[in-house]
Amino acid sequence: MESLRVELGERAYRIHIGSGILDDASLYAAHLAAGRAAVVTNTVVAPLYLERLRRALAAAGVHTLEIVVADGEQAKDWRTLDQVFDALLAARCDRQTPIVALGGGVVGDLAGFAAAVYLRGVPFIQVPTTLLAQVDSSVGGKTAVNHPRGKNLIGAFHQPLVVVSDVATLATLPVRELRAGLAEVIKHGFGLDRGFTDWLEVNLGRLLAGDADALTHAVRRSCELKAEVVAADERESGRRAVLNLGHTFAHAIETGMGYGEWLHGEAVAAGMVIAAELSARAGLIGERDVRRVRELINRAGLPVAGPATLPPERYLELMAIDKKATRGRIRFVLLEAIGRAVLRADIDEQLVREAIAAATAAAAPRSSSHPAKPL
Amino acid sequence: MESLRVELGERAYRIHIGSGILDDASLYAAHLAAGRAAVVTNTVVAPLYLERLRRALAAAGVHTLEIVVADGEQAKDWRTLDQVFDALLAARCDRQTPIVALGGGVVGDLAGFAAAVYLRGVPFIQVPTTLLAQVDSSVGGKTAVNHPRGKNLIGAFHQPLVVVSDVATLATLPVRELRAGLAEVIKHGFGLDRGFTDWLEVNLGRLLAGDADALTHAVRRSCELKAEVVAADERESGRRAVLNLGHTFAHAIETGMGYGEWLHGEAVAAGMVIAAELSARAGLIGERDVRRVRELINRAGLPVAGPATLPPERYLELMAIDKKATRGRIRFVLLEAIGRAVLRADIDEQLVREAIAAATAAAAPRSSSHPAKPL
Repeated sequence: MESLRVELGERAYRIHIGSGILDDASLYAAHLAAGRAAVVTNTVVAPLYLERLRRALAAAGVHTLEIVVADGEQAKDWRTLDQVFDALLAARCDRQTPIVALGGGVVGDLAGFAAAVYLRGVPFIQVPTTLLAQVDSSVGGKTAVNHPRGKNLIGAFHQPLVVVSDVATLATLPVRELRAGLAEVIKHGFGLDRGFTDWLEVNLGRLLAGDADALTHAVRRSCELKAEVVAADERESGRRAVLNLGHTFAHAIETGMGYGEWLHGEAVAAGMVIAAELSARAGLIGERDVRRVRELINRAGLPVAGPATLPPERYLELMAIDKKATRGRIRFVLLEAIGRAVLRADIDEQLVREAIAAATAAAAPRSSSHPAKPL
Repeated sequence: MESLRVELGERAYRIHIGSGILDDASLYAAHLAAGRAAVVTNTVVAPLYLERLRRALAAAGVHTLEIVVADGEQAKDWRTLDQVFDALLAARCDRQTPIVALGGGVVGDLAGFAAAVYLRGVPFIQVPTTLLAQVDSSVGGKTAVNHPRGKNLIGAFHQPLVVVSDVATLATLPVRELRAGLAEVIKHGFGLDRGFTDWLEVNLGRLLAGDADALTHAVRRSCELKAEVVAADERESGRRAVLNLGHTFAHAIETGMGYGEWLHGEAVAAGMVIAAELSARAGLIGERDVRRVRELINRAGLPVAGPATLPPERYLELMAIDKKATRGRIRFVLLEAIGRAVLRADIDEQLVREAIAAATAAAAPRSSSHPAKPL
């Protein structure tokens, strides 16, 4: 097992990463003095891990309130949130009762937002069971629900007390979701660390094969890289935006196609290719770097092109409403080198249209060997 | 005009209090660099003050997005919140656009919570137009909406950038609401400052008559007293609870009677009498102090007894679910002297029943001269 400390002053917390650590009650014990915890999970994860977690907590003298919500991005809405509130209130959970998120990013975002606003804030513990949640949601304190007008528009920053990432749970993950999680791992490489990108290019096969040591390293390094950025900018006022490489385009893809059609990581993958194409057009990187981005993403079995049905104009429309638009101008996270993302708000819209077109299935012949729709 | 600084480190802000200062754009200017602001108000306040505020902001070069919601506590729900989100999203308000709450406590709580969670938090400015909001909501950063199971159960701490309290707006306040606001002013005296209580006993007539200087002093001193407590305990983990004198019972009254039947301040008034009766039964204060509490509240035209239709058992039931219950035990804010509130979690339930009975309209003959239902 490896452990990592996210430095956030009085909100600092630890992330434990390892294989088979889900039911190591000693990792939770310090935060469960209240004698009970509300575990929020979904209908897919519950049959796999809820009983194991419940038994581990019971052995530590902690009673578990189980709140099982529907699976999928569609569940990240007010209705499901209200289901969580109702269960917490019916069980009279007070300000000392921690909410434990057992599941992927959707469960983490939803349960985290519930913890942020229930009784104006209660303790929060994360037990991420998808690669995406382990490398992304576990650092940063971002919680949210979706709004019919866009993804993650209603939310809060709420840091967990501890994160327990069991890479053994990734064995039950559908391969499509494992790959989607790899998109964020790859993003941390391209955006923040050339050395980690090199490591990923060598070890991608081990990761796809579910090698526990490789996964533990990838999760740990991803969390470390993200934690450094977050510690410097907890409330996302500036620097932190570099973590959003590919995300401005990804959100447009997800909203434009309807939540759930594309996995978040798949949209991020295509979004990174668009960002790389745009970076090249803005004169920041060369064609060789763009190819490196395309190739690693392609080898990971991820889409290197956005959906054929989403024209550039629709992206621009959707991005304008996205929260990364500041005072009307869309800010783009671009690459000025492999391992070095930058934030730019001065990009010509015509270049954006061209970059999107270059990475859109129907319009980009060189990506014709890749599926327009995710596998 | 008087000004007061609420010391909260990097979240410190100023409260300006005076007569006719609502349209003094210089008080807002520093926080409106974005060039626009979303003003949330309700159907009662909008015709009175929205145009004045809009013109003042326009003169300062700030465009106003107007969001007018329904009046009343019933509007403090998710549906109204979603109306605010929809308006903000339709106008593409970004993270730099401040939300201005123009109105009473309901508007402040609702708009404040919207500001806390819209795009994970945007700037917030308060322009309270009721006495309750000026002395209570303007300090503390508490925002919330109600849940069918109880008041203020979903919320967040979100500090404003500045508060502009124009006591001239109190002239348009129904007398019932002015009195309800006085309940919180009186609470700050009884709970925190014997000297302020003395001042209130002398100057109550001036306050009821709408004297601008007396109101300015009362608002200022109330905010000062509350700010001292809040600065020491921003997230309400301990000491801050003394501000809730009367509130545990008040929330039971409000929930038990249905939101809006009793004004919050009226419920707090009756709640303070119950708290005083309970303090006497717990041996903390004498009968003379209880009489002092009853008399000032009575002179202010506020109820000194809870509703006849709410028996003690129902209070206990409702209070158990209230968020002030910690690990199953109800904590009470009691008086150990006039001007000194304390938090106690060791109170015998039987004493609580007796104190409620002693301050319930039908069961307490000595309060028969006061209306069971608020004026």
